[in-house]
Amino acid sequence: MTDERGLHVVIPAGGVGTRLWPLSRSDRPKFLLDLTGSGRTLLQHTWDRLAPLGATITVVTGARHERQVAEQLPDLRPEHLIVEPSPRDSMAAIGLAAALRSRREPDAVLGSFPADHVIEGDAEFATAVAEAAAAAADGYVCVVGLAPARPSTAYGYVRAGDRLPNGALQVHRFTEKPDEQTARSYLATGHFLWNAGMFVTRADVLLGHLQRQLPLLHDGLMAIAEAWDTVDRADTLARIWPTLTRIPIDHAIAEPLAVAGGMACVLGTFRWDDVGDFAALARLLPGGDVKVLGEPARVRTDDSTGVIVTGERAITVLGVPDAVVVDTPDALLVTTTAHAQRVAQIRAAWQGARGDLL
Amino acid sequence: MTDERGLHVVIPAGGVGTRLWPLSRSDRPKFLLDLTGSGRTLLQHTWDRLAPLGATITVVTGARHERQVAEQLPDLRPEHLIVEPSPRDSMAAIGLAAALRSRREPDAVLGSFPADHVIEGDAEFATAVAEAAAAAADGYVCVVGLAPARPSTAYGYVRAGDRLPNGALQVHRFTEKPDEQTARSYLATGHFLWNAGMFVTRADVLLGHLQRQLPLLHDGLMAIAEAWDTVDRADTLARIWPTLTRIPIDHAIAEPLAVAGGMACVLGTFRWDDVGDFAALARLLPGGDVKVLGEPARVRTDDSTGVIVTGERAITVLGVPDAVVVDTPDALLVTTTAHAQRVAQIRAAWQGARGDLL
Repeated sequence: MTDERGLHVVIPAGGVGTRLWPLSRSDRPKFLLDLTGSGRTLLQHTWDRLAPLGATITVVTGARHERQVAEQLPDLRPEHLIVEPSPRDSMAAIGLAAALRSRREPDAVLGSFPADHVIEGDAEFATAVAEAAAAAADGYVCVVGLAPARPSTAYGYVRAGDRLPNGALQVHRFTEKPDEQTARSYLATGHFLWNAGMFVTRADVLLGHLQRQLPLLHDGLMAIAEAWDTVDRADTLARIWPTLTRIPIDHAIAEPLAVAGGMACVLGTFRWDDVGDFAALARLLPGGDVKVLGEPARVRTDDSTGVIVTGERAITVLGVPDAVVVDTPDALLVTTTAHAQRVAQIRAAWQGARGDLL
Repeated sequence: MTDERGLHVVIPAGGVGTRLWPLSRSDRPKFLLDLTGSGRTLLQHTWDRLAPLGATITVVTGARHERQVAEQLPDLRPEHLIVEPSPRDSMAAIGLAAALRSRREPDAVLGSFPADHVIEGDAEFATAVAEAAAAAADGYVCVVGLAPARPSTAYGYVRAGDRLPNGALQVHRFTEKPDEQTARSYLATGHFLWNAGMFVTRADVLLGHLQRQLPLLHDGLMAIAEAWDTVDRADTLARIWPTLTRIPIDHAIAEPLAVAGGMACVLGTFRWDDVGDFAALARLLPGGDVKVLGEPARVRTDDSTGVIVTGERAITVLGVPDAVVVDTPDALLVTTTAHAQRVAQIRAAWQGARGDLL
């Protein structure tokens, strides 16, 4: 059934990427940036990767980024661009897309894929999505897991169990970012996979779980979907949207459902990175000891390693191992890859005096 | 005699300060910069310190900096601003000032003081200069030495000997920047002083030594002095100046003369720094773990120490000990104080492709 009608892709395009500040900003978040030096943004790459796989592609984004999303995705149909009046986290974003789709096709298979991850291996990606769609058609909420390449403390993990008849793996539980010792113990078991943040599910299955877990959120989304194609859309959105619970789909559905046995996982064999911080960016970019995002001619280094994001100026780095130097017109960041996860905190230090920098 | 007529001050204002790049540039060298955050440049501080001590003050600078020097020193008499057509190092600069003065006062006492050092303790400085002038009147070429505060490898040293009848110390020899082990051994003897680069001498004594050591340079300078107040000045300068030997006064006079017994030294008890690199700047500036030259409101740091020179942008430094971050409109430098002495080399790496940055 899924094979005939195809997958309905949802791309929640939200989140600032505060650990990539000052490269990513509130009004120019990570998904709108070219972080690979390819000439295409992460959102555009996400589109390129999913366009061959989706019967439809819906993008859910904030009002602040509507114009830029539309400009970057000229093939996105206007009726498939859902604009959130305010950020309500991923459960509301994906739930609304499911509610809208379910009006005409209750058992449609939806796949939600982050707008700001980097993936290499399109064929392997397509295979994983097809396997996940099969598990979803079977009634599971299915995620994609990846064999951990290192004991990362920046990712969430999936504890996988036995193989299901549909070929996917049962999911026992999800875990948040672990400390390094815990991460090492996960890798030693061989049962833990990185959680790539992708969710494939039937609309009716997702909405059913949502109704049981968060009935008010469910009812709010259904009311908005009901009014969507009427003159009441704006009023209904304005009235209900601000009341919706802010919660990620992981907490709302995936974690409790794993315990209840309703979550599945397929193994992705593509290369994946969420580019969560500058250490990730340093890993991803091609190059020698010093990776450059931008114009290499603007950079001279000696006795240094790390990653440099160029702006308009010439950058000289001397004797700084694992340096992170980010040059933007109004803000400069100097740190090291070891401190990459703390960038969001020091960004916040500008909140009071210089909110314009965020 | 000297006491009656006073000291004739010469300020050679040359040198780029390449180890302070990109703060100092070819067209905005170190002596034209406010490196202490006081609102006055190093040249202006040098003027302020010497104005009460000098019967006259002559500044010798390059054609490229003539306008800026005149602007920064409104009290400098135009006839006391000597403009070099091209850089010929300190012997030619000081020698020309001596040759010009000697025409009307052959035994005038001249004191040459660098334009780009930082000194604290004006009274102690004046005392040292008066003592040096007394030794100079006595026929010595006299320098000012300072008790070494640490085994610096960035300074030259003076090996001092017995006290002369005029109160100064005999100088046995000068040494270039030593390695650290040598510097430590110097300090252990108690006989070595930092050479502050100041020379106090009678004009006739200096010119006599110059005539013996470098007769062609001497004769060239005398010929220029001869033509100085005539219509031939420009032609004579244009003809002779390019032929003059490029040599610092240390090599031309001080080193050979020390061996011959003609050099003396007085002990300065003022605080002195040549601000030779960013490690020196970090030492000099007031402040806590992170010193800021510029606007402190533009800086946020965490888990870092060092020195930051602000430009127009907000600067965030996270987890970089002994950081040196210099923000200018067209060039950014990131290094550490341990690499401060190597800045000139990496500056040179821009020579070919981006000479505009120098």
